[in-house]
Amino acid sequence: MKNYRICIYYLFAIALFFSCNKTAENQPKELEKLAPGVWMLKYGTPEKIDLLSELGINPKFDAIKAMGEAELPIDRSEIKIEVIDGKTYLRFPLDENEKIWGLGLNFKTVEQRGRVMQLHVDHYGGRDNGRTHAPVPFFVSSKGYGALINSARYIDVWVGTGVRKDSQNPPVARDRNTDKEWSSQPYSDNLEFLIPAEGVEVILFSGSSTLDVVRRYNLYNGGGCLPPKWGLGFWHRVPTLYTDRDILNEVAEFEKQKFPLSVVGLEPGWMTRSYPCTYEWDSTRFPNPAQLVKQLADNHIKTNLWINPYISPDGELYKKLLPYSGSHTVWCGIVPDYTMTEVQQILKEHFIKHQLSIGVSGYKMDENDGYDQWLWPDVATFPSGVPAESMRQLYGSIMQKFTTDMYRKENLRTFGLVRSANAGTSSFPYVLYNDYYEHRDFITALINSSFIGVLWTPEVRASKSSEEWVRRMQTVCFSPLAMLNAWADGTKPWSFPDVAKEVNEIALLRMQLIPYLYTAFADYTFLGTPPIRAMNLEEGYTAYDAISQKAFDGTDNPYNTALKKEVKDQFMFGEYLLVAPLFAGEKTRQVILPQGRWYDFYTGEFAGQGEVISVSPGIGRIPVYVKDGGIVPMFPPITKITGEKLPVEIRHYGVKNGTYNLYDDDGETYNYEKGEYTRIKIDVTIDKDQKKTGKVDLPEGSQTWSFSEFSFKYMAK
Amino acid sequence: MKNYRICIYYLFAIALFFSCNKTAENQPKELEKLAPGVWMLKYGTPEKIDLLSELGINPKFDAIKAMGEAELPIDRSEIKIEVIDGKTYLRFPLDENEKIWGLGLNFKTVEQRGRVMQLHVDHYGGRDNGRTHAPVPFFVSSKGYGALINSARYIDVWVGTGVRKDSQNPPVARDRNTDKEWSSQPYSDNLEFLIPAEGVEVILFSGSSTLDVVRRYNLYNGGGCLPPKWGLGFWHRVPTLYTDRDILNEVAEFEKQKFPLSVVGLEPGWMTRSYPCTYEWDSTRFPNPAQLVKQLADNHIKTNLWINPYISPDGELYKKLLPYSGSHTVWCGIVPDYTMTEVQQILKEHFIKHQLSIGVSGYKMDENDGYDQWLWPDVATFPSGVPAESMRQLYGSIMQKFTTDMYRKENLRTFGLVRSANAGTSSFPYVLYNDYYEHRDFITALINSSFIGVLWTPEVRASKSSEEWVRRMQTVCFSPLAMLNAWADGTKPWSFPDVAKEVNEIALLRMQLIPYLYTAFADYTFLGTPPIRAMNLEEGYTAYDAISQKAFDGTDNPYNTALKKEVKDQFMFGEYLLVAPLFAGEKTRQVILPQGRWYDFYTGEFAGQGEVISVSPGIGRIPVYVKDGGIVPMFPPITKITGEKLPVEIRHYGVKNGTYNLYDDDGETYNYEKGEYTRIKIDVTIDKDQKKTGKVDLPEGSQTWSFSEFSFKYMAK
Repeated sequence: MKNYRICIYYLFAIALFFSCNKTAENQPKELEKLAPGVWMLKYGTPEKIDLLSELGINPKFDAIKAMGEAELPIDRSEIKIEVIDGKTYLRFPLDENEKIWGLGLNFKTVEQRGRVMQLHVDHYGGRDNGRTHAPVPFFVSSKGYGALINSARYIDVWVGTGVRKDSQNPPVARDRNTDKEWSSQPYSDNLEFLIPAEGVEVILFSGSSTLDVVRRYNLYNGGGCLPPKWGLGFWHRVPTLYTDRDILNEVAEFEKQKFPLSVVGLEPGWMTRSYPCTYEWDSTRFPNPAQLVKQLADNHIKTNLWINPYISPDGELYKKLLPYSGSHTVWCGIVPDYTMTEVQQILKEHFIKHQLSIGVSGYKMDENDGYDQWLWPDVATFPSGVPAESMRQLYGSIMQKFTTDMYRKENLRTFGLVRSANAGTSSFPYVLYNDYYEHRDFITALINSSFIGVLWTPEVRASKSSEEWVRRMQTVCFSPLAMLNAWADGTKPWSFPDVAKEVNEIALLRMQLIPYLYTAFADYTFLGTPPIRAMNLEEGYTAYDAISQKAFDGTDNPYNTALKKEVKDQFMFGEYLLVAPLFAGEKTRQVILPQGRWYDFYTGEFAGQGEVISVSPGIGRIPVYVKDGGIVPMFPPITKITGEKLPVEIRHYGVKNGTYNLYDDDGETYNYEKGEYTRIKIDVTIDKDQKKTGKVDLPEGSQTWSFSEFSFKYMAK
Repeated sequence: MKNYRICIYYLFAIALFFSCNKTAENQPKELEKLAPGVWMLKYGTPEKIDLLSELGINPKFDAIKAMGEAELPIDRSEIKIEVIDGKTYLRFPLDENEKIWGLGLNFKTVEQRGRVMQLHVDHYGGRDNGRTHAPVPFFVSSKGYGALINSARYIDVWVGTGVRKDSQNPPVARDRNTDKEWSSQPYSDNLEFLIPAEGVEVILFSGSSTLDVVRRYNLYNGGGCLPPKWGLGFWHRVPTLYTDRDILNEVAEFEKQKFPLSVVGLEPGWMTRSYPCTYEWDSTRFPNPAQLVKQLADNHIKTNLWINPYISPDGELYKKLLPYSGSHTVWCGIVPDYTMTEVQQILKEHFIKHQLSIGVSGYKMDENDGYDQWLWPDVATFPSGVPAESMRQLYGSIMQKFTTDMYRKENLRTFGLVRSANAGTSSFPYVLYNDYYEHRDFITALINSSFIGVLWTPEVRASKSSEEWVRRMQTVCFSPLAMLNAWADGTKPWSFPDVAKEVNEIALLRMQLIPYLYTAFADYTFLGTPPIRAMNLEEGYTAYDAISQKAFDGTDNPYNTALKKEVKDQFMFGEYLLVAPLFAGEKTRQVILPQGRWYDFYTGEFAGQGEVISVSPGIGRIPVYVKDGGIVPMFPPITKITGEKLPVEIRHYGVKNGTYNLYDDDGETYNYEKGEYTRIKIDVTIDKDQKKTGKVDLPEGSQTWSFSEFSFKYMAK
């Protein structure tokens, strides 16, 4: 009896210990400073598998330190976090005029205030509801901070929609019967997240500008990727059933047309089976793949191969991967559990043996995003025990990581395409694309990619008119990856003869801009600055968002909903260029020029300053403006990237002194990480007589660069 | 030390006991038989709050028993259920040609095979993705069974999309490169559910026909509702800011136009404040509400009031309800926690005092469905502790239950409108409606409502043409609630003068059909048979679904997706009528007549049998067909339901003997539950000379009915 009592006592004590422990664990902790302007908030019991845990990222703390200190503009106590019923409730304050950007690769909207989303990897389905190729749970606030909700779960977000009863600054109730000011969406001072896990890790980033917030985010994720130089040339993906002969003919046709070409992409037909895949060369269409890849390489053309993750029972990989695959099949192929090292090892071996060893430069990794109708369901199970939901959120990220590592081991940079990404992928050299095809929305995605550490290409596939064709070609040439994807439609750059000349010109301009773009990517890598950026990340930019009122009626607008018209059709390209594309049907457009003087890229003429201008550039031109003092180094209009040294023309725009840090390295290895790169300092000074003097400060020592000579061109008129 | 050891021993034993207990709890249990053809499968730890727990339903076990035994066509072992990581994984087998219906009020599709949904109460947003006004987690299989997944959570469903690696009957992998038979959605033999709870209750229903499955489902939910007779007349909702005077003028205009009118609906303007609401009469627009309601009642017109659930700070209810409201506001109004008896009590008192006591007949309960942008977020908390997600799934259901009970206490039947429902609401006298307005999709919803125990009205609001106007009026008159909702548009039935006559005719036909429709509703109540039914619930019906192939291209159809063309534009109305509406722009349509002979409703002419016919009925007619032997009792073309006894014309169609069980009761109280109702047996027999003889078998005793005399009309020609 006595024993029994003591035992009860022990039980109580133990129970107490566990419950106290649990409570203690759930207490809101203080922020842990990780680096200047970077903090971690860990709450509850975050899951083992999160968005970053599988990606082996090395944060660039030195680069963050070099940015200096930055205060967090909100107080820790303003961040509310709680675990209820197995889920984490997380809340940030919102000021009345605060803007929120990011929260995934959205295609219709830039600013996210007023939206409700479930962040969920999926093919974009036409609505900004969180289902997208890169549903990154990272937001940037106009107050000068951002936060990454590091959970590999489907996260619900209410961006200033829910109004709390205990709000200190609530909106006023209005009578809809008679008050014209009534709104279906009153102002809310909350940004709320629901994370279906018993805890979460939140990484907070601050900055003196929104760009600095994004930079810290990218640097924390290892810095942006640095593509090999050939990756910045022109890409062409051939029709899916092309044979080696067809490909060589196509390449010859590019030469005949004097059209740039750096990479040829092979679509599913390179394999014996696709959907599901074997990753084995089809010997009828490709009797000697090694010879083909070599022939192309000799011609300075890289080979990129399409794959999807699902493994066909008709290939040698099937048996090897079967034990490491999930409970469900996709298109009757097994779904490898990419979180397992066994899977990565088996695939690496196969890829190296059959593809890397013969010179294949990289992959286009399709179908790792959606749709639900054909992907594994959330009731699938995987041998690693990783939940199907988290697998969905991470699949594309891990595919990126493992293929990047595979090339890195060979000391080669790859550059490829992928259809899903998430937080933490900034450093992987992959560009997102999809099947969706609204030109305007493609540009909105290009803009949004800059908030969340991913790259996006508005690839060109087909067009309904030559006008659309040339307008699409113009924007893809001002994107991270300039590509014609003819897999299904068999289009060629010159498919619309009446604009063939204009298309050729823009592709050649792309090639000319390689030194400038490569430097922009170096800034992505070393400084975290996205090479293509939303205007909202640019100092001196003011958005002119318009709110318009639709007519009220019982069917089309029963809630008198106001429409927000955002500016989402212009963006920054590298340090100095502002790109303002036109879309089919547009003859004229308005361009918002930020504070400071801006100049026409093509003519050097003054365009305006801190104002909205109207331009009618004609079919052959995409409007591009250069910041006052801007410097743009340019190659000649080459069609191949041969590695030969080329002369570089340094353009200077405007009336201010200019400075530029031209980046160069070997263009294809990781030796730059060991310091084997060059920064060439370029200065243009203007004396009191308006005379411009350019100076190239070549570094001393044994360093080499790909420039044979430098010349200056002073553009301002 | 010894004590310590013993203690450890005890701890082990206790731990073992709990873990065993847990395992035992999670073991797949056998089915528990609840009634003939009804079983329960309880697994894991189902939540306390489920779809039925708050609704106080009394299953009609006697009526189920009367249906007799019915085998479950699948074996218990074929139902897989498991709790992983806090969620319940539930799986049903699918045969290759099995069809699945139900799973919410879908607007575009009837058969659900191949779809992925998250069942989530919301305003319908244009896609059958599970977000709808009644996301009922109940499916009906063509194999002759159905299942209700009784969880008030957002349930994910994969209806034959995921293919399991361990499938006994898997689809064959095909090479997309070359195999023309490749499909983006290979056949799957699973119907899978993911329920985010550690257990669930599943109720299984079987039947010798799919209709019997649905009947058992409805009877288990207490049987279908029986609206008061006045509810089956014509409804008109007036513009939101109408005053009492405007309403009386409108009623006078209806009389002048000789247009039927049974119910007048008042929209938000009856209150002092709306969005959020006070539920208090606005004294400027309604100086004497009691007098208005009485004046209307004296004129045989009932009054229905619009409300939404959110309580304005400017009304007397606010303070009372504040302690019982959720953490978030909607349109700055508090959100009462309807699961709390305190809330129901406070509201009942208010409603009775200010509205029921003066004769208000019921409510239109708006905005209890969505959208996310203005409803409480899932991070809201409620004083009862019910999670916000479950509150969302249940809100409309509980509002229905509590208002029904409120009227029941007065021994009065109400009939009203509601914008959300879920499982278990069959017995509540509410009809769903929404803001969406696609006429065809409205009819698809009407069809789908019959699988899931809810009612739907394709209400008329406005139209772009007189053709659309009359076509919409024709369908709403063959729906559970015939209503013009002019709240925003100020339309009148005669708004399109060139079809005013036709609109009047169809509204009068609606009034004539009241005895027939009232009997159909009695069959819903007593037998569980939906008054309006999908063709798939009709014996002898064969669907002619067509699969068409869209052209393949890289943008519009990159996956060669096949399109399924379903028949979703005809339905059964009561026991004998088949309705095949036309839509604006259609001059001719095809009608699928099930097995057996069918006759034109208007002329009695033979129309066809088990075949597809083509009809071109002209603008004034909606095609309606009657089953061979069908009997349709009809009133004269009245404009008011006065309670006076009326002659009834009994129409007989076709060449078969007919039989009918005409139902009647007092039309407005619950006395029928005490047996105070009448069934009048009607027989038409045809002798060998084709002579028809009709017989009305009036029951003996003290029973009364609303028919002054009976006459027969033999329609077959």
